[in-house]
Amino acid sequence: MSGAIGVFDSGVGGLTVLRALRKAMPDARFTYLGDTARLPYGTKSAASVVRYAGQAADALLRQGLSCLVVACNTASAIALEDLRTRLAPLPVVGVVEPGARAAVAATRSGRIAVIATEGTVRAGAYDAAIRRLDPAASVTSAACPLFVALAEEGWTDGDIPERVAHRYLEPLLGVATPPDVLLLGCTHFPVLAQVLARVAGPAVRIVDSAATTAAEVAAMGLAVSGPGSVRFEATDGAGRFARVGAAFLGEAIREADVTVLDLGAA
Amino acid sequence: MSGAIGVFDSGVGGLTVLRALRKAMPDARFTYLGDTARLPYGTKSAASVVRYAGQAADALLRQGLSCLVVACNTASAIALEDLRTRLAPLPVVGVVEPGARAAVAATRSGRIAVIATEGTVRAGAYDAAIRRLDPAASVTSAACPLFVALAEEGWTDGDIPERVAHRYLEPLLGVATPPDVLLLGCTHFPVLAQVLARVAGPAVRIVDSAATTAAEVAAMGLAVSGPGSVRFEATDGAGRFARVGAAFLGEAIREADVTVLDLGAA
Repeated sequence: MSGAIGVFDSGVGGLTVLRALRKAMPDARFTYLGDTARLPYGTKSAASVVRYAGQAADALLRQGLSCLVVACNTASAIALEDLRTRLAPLPVVGVVEPGARAAVAATRSGRIAVIATEGTVRAGAYDAAIRRLDPAASVTSAACPLFVALAEEGWTDGDIPERVAHRYLEPLLGVATPPDVLLLGCTHFPVLAQVLARVAGPAVRIVDSAATTAAEVAAMGLAVSGPGSVRFEATDGAGRFARVGAAFLGEAIREADVTVLDLGAA
Repeated sequence: MSGAIGVFDSGVGGLTVLRALRKAMPDARFTYLGDTARLPYGTKSAASVVRYAGQAADALLRQGLSCLVVACNTASAIALEDLRTRLAPLPVVGVVEPGARAAVAATRSGRIAVIATEGTVRAGAYDAAIRRLDPAASVTSAACPLFVALAEEGWTDGDIPERVAHRYLEPLLGVATPPDVLLLGCTHFPVLAQVLARVAGPAVRIVDSAATTAAEVAAMGLAVSGPGSVRFEATDGAGRFARVGAAFLGEAIREADVTVLDLGAA
């Protein structure tokens, strides 16, 4: 199979996963699709997330894929089974299972805290995935929607994100037997990792699913026909995608390199 | 004309306008449509906002309307002319012109600061509307996306919104000849009015478009056939609409009273 590796997210957050994928597979071709016209998924109903994810997958599929990476926690938590059924036999990799694996590998106490979007927390996907790996694990979770806004605004350091982090993390970490792992269950959150680490303190390890997801895809042994490349697609606003996305990808994106699609009409 | 007054917003923020409308016209029938599946509009492209607003207006129109109130600043700033053309001769009232009128009436110095979403600021609609009313007015503006997230999260008081307000308002107000009016150019912002007033200080008057929009609609002399009522429609998540919307409407909303529509398929 010589198709590109499709990477799909509701917006730009999944670029943190693309960054890890490119590092793990520098010679692979990637097509990244951000459904920016309909972001955020994190506050939408399960039915809407399933429909949107299906439309995005179909659009990527028409270009020929060797694998689909669902680099969006909300879509992974809610729509993964639907996508696997719809796209079989194409391999579909979500970020929830790799994230759960990273958390279980990192914990010593077996107590894991998960922060994510409202939709991901409501779906309970991380709780289920972690308990499948370690039935004795204790999982607590909280929805942290302000982190998404802070990450998109680029306010990733200083007083304001620190106070927001305190407010969200205190109920999770300020307990009698606190967790020793904080799992970032939203692809927007890695850009806030330094603030989160400072607020959580040295006894808590911060893990996210980007690196473990990339390792899982690399281990699949997909045929790779270099040179490595990325095609960027968004459903709205090439300029905003390029501007906001750069912080998540860790390198500049040229607006002219972002193709705008209409998934509703597709 | 005995149709309902249609009130349209990208989500729940427009409920601050509905609240003012009901106060001004207690015997009128209202249908409120929040396009929650595709919110926020404030970060979307102009083309998407025009398309979404047109679909929402069509859905309301099928129920029979006497008037359409576009209770969303972004849609008013970007899609109002398109809606007026499409729906003529139905009267279509936006919130930008009433907001501009409120600001011009309140200022003594002629210096007005506008805070809004990215889309509204980029469209420059408030600048144009204020200058039409007072060509000598001086208008400065800033996009404040975190305020939307804070309002939706219900963090409308205390340290965090205050620091966010400081950060956004300092460049607007901390100047040699500061404005004396701060216009809330987003229907989410009135729930933060107390914090904004505290940060802006007593020399700055806070105005929003809810009351002036309601007064404008009331002055149209539409035939009203009581008893007054509201029908709630959303494009996603009745539960979330009811829960988050209550703070904006100022009264409880029952989830069972929210009808969910699919505008994409409509």
